[in-house]
Amino acid sequence: MTMAYTTKIKVRFGDIDHAGIAYYPNLYHYCHVAFEEFFEDFIGIPYPRIIEQERVGFPTVRVESYFRRPIKYGDTLEISVGVARVGESSVTFEFRAARAGEGELCFATSHILVAVDMTTFKPVRIPEHLREAFLRAGRTSAAAQP
Amino acid sequence: MTMAYTTKIKVRFGDIDHAGIAYYPNLYHYCHVAFEEFFEDFIGIPYPRIIEQERVGFPTVRVESYFRRPIKYGDTLEISVGVARVGESSVTFEFRAARAGEGELCFATSHILVAVDMTTFKPVRIPEHLREAFLRAGRTSAAAQP
Amino acid sequence: MTMAYTTKIKVRFGDIDHAGIAYYPNLYHYCHVAFEEFFEDFIGIPYPRIIEQERVGFPTVRVESYFRRPIKYGDTLEISVGVARVGESSVTFEFRAARAGEGELCFATSHILVAVDMTTFKPVRIPEHLREAFLRAGRTSAAAQP
Amino acid sequence: MTMAYTTKIKVRFGDIDHAGIAYYPNLYHYCHVAFEEFFEDFIGIPYPRIIEQERVGFPTVRVESYFRRPIKYGDTLEISVGVARVGESSVTFEFRAARAGEGELCFATSHILVAVDMTTFKPVRIPEHLREAFLRAGRTSAAAQP
Repeated sequence: MTMAYTTKIKVRFGDIDHAGIAYYPNLYHYCHVAFEEFFEDFIGIPYPRIIEQERVGFPTVRVESYFRRPIKYGDTLEISVGVARVGESSVTFEFRAARAGEGELCFATSHILVAVDMTTFKPVRIPEHLREAFLRAGRTSAAAQP
Repeated sequence: MTMAYTTKIKVRFGDIDHAGIAYYPNLYHYCHVAFEEFFEDFIGIPYPRIIEQERVGFPTVRVESYFRRPIKYGDTLEISVGVARVGESSVTFEFRAARAGEGELCFATSHILVAVDMTTFKPVRIPEHLREAFLRAGRTSAAAQP
Repeated sequence: MTMAYTTKIKVRFGDIDHAGIAYYPNLYHYCHVAFEEFFEDFIGIPYPRIIEQERVGFPTVRVESYFRRPIKYGDTLEISVGVARVGESSVTFEFRAARAGEGELCFATSHILVAVDMTTFKPVRIPEHLREAFLRAGRTSAAAQP
Repeated sequence: MTMAYTTKIKVRFGDIDHAGIAYYPNLYHYCHVAFEEFFEDFIGIPYPRIIEQERVGFPTVRVESYFRRPIKYGDTLEISVGVARVGESSVTFEFRAARAGEGELCFATSHILVAVDMTTFKPVRIPEHLREAFLRAGRTSAAAQP
């Protein structure tokens, strides 16, 4: 699917590992940064405000990832964000990364997140306005499919 | 399967995120630390020496993970390492984490790694002595299965 | 002194520690990111290219820092970069951070960096075009002083 | 001064930067890990328990550091911890790192920490039992001086 939202992330000097490529745990950090940008830019509400005002967070419960091409210092990544499925309390985000200006995929990952109450960490129903935003992101993705 | 090797990792003050739990990219870092300890303790050769002397590294190409329980500051994790499959140039590692002294799984992840030449990043056949060690870890795991 | 260059950095979900504020080692990462942006934007040459083409890097040998205000998730920092002194092979950078749109200092740090050959890690004379750029940054800073 | 407490920290694959040495912000993380170990081993109370039960934390307000030797992947560091000064609400920690089994200093840093109430972040008097422990660490350091 084509994705609902894209943001750019620069690979930093300290993100590199002993093999001279971006350390893969840092690629998950990039995905979370893209997720935060998606909230701010696509949904229009910064993620910190969701957490503070609605006391809802979205911890990750399931991850599936493919790492295809090594990422180097000096690379700028375009990370695309899409929503593949919206459930009662869970939502499936897709992240895809390519070097800016190139089409070829560097890595792709699917994350299932669960809405939880930030105090108890128990699952809760996704707040309605966020559900609508996730579905809108899903439709955008679907509409863009061939 | 029961795992070939187990190491302990303490959750650190800086590993925590805004939700008050270990930031999930850091859990992948813990897995890589366990992988490094597995080389040093189970195989008997530090990973840095493999890279330096044999010019072979094992980047991750595929990840599948389940995060079950939030991990907090003050927790000590027991991370178990097993080998599920050894191919020509790829090897599948399993990592499972529980709080030390408790049986319940906090997270489990499967990583497919590919042996590559550290200069070209092209796949190479897994060096024989490492293949044997991985198979030995696999047998240990298999033998321990019910 | 007023600084030569300013860049914005968003505090991320994973940058927070168990005390609910940005983990101070991450603030040094922010400074390095600002340093990289300074190369790209103020000098006009990305830092990765300096390293690759001139085989010169600038490891930090001395740090002095004041942390004044806790930095929270959701904050956007304005990090200003200045050059206080240019020596034969060393250069003193100043970094100052305030929340965007507010004047009050969150932290300030002075870093002495030394130009080294990237293979031997021995000090070398700062390449002329970089020395000029550092002096230009220093003059900008000086000129802006009251 | 000779230090009150020493702990070992292994440099990890992901701690390395694009220059092939430990990224200096990670060295501050090592110091915080050594600080946490100091609480657990020297004082006998894990730092998480101090925070949880006494609602007191020790953010860093001032840092002074010297980085002398590059630290590589495969190195094991011995990080020594000492207390140089104990004030009403502030305490000065010294950290020194050398490669295990070698005497030569890799880096040294002095941190001034301030005891704060974890809710308000306002300075508080250092709890008496911690003050005694810090003074004991200080005496140990002093006694060991030539």
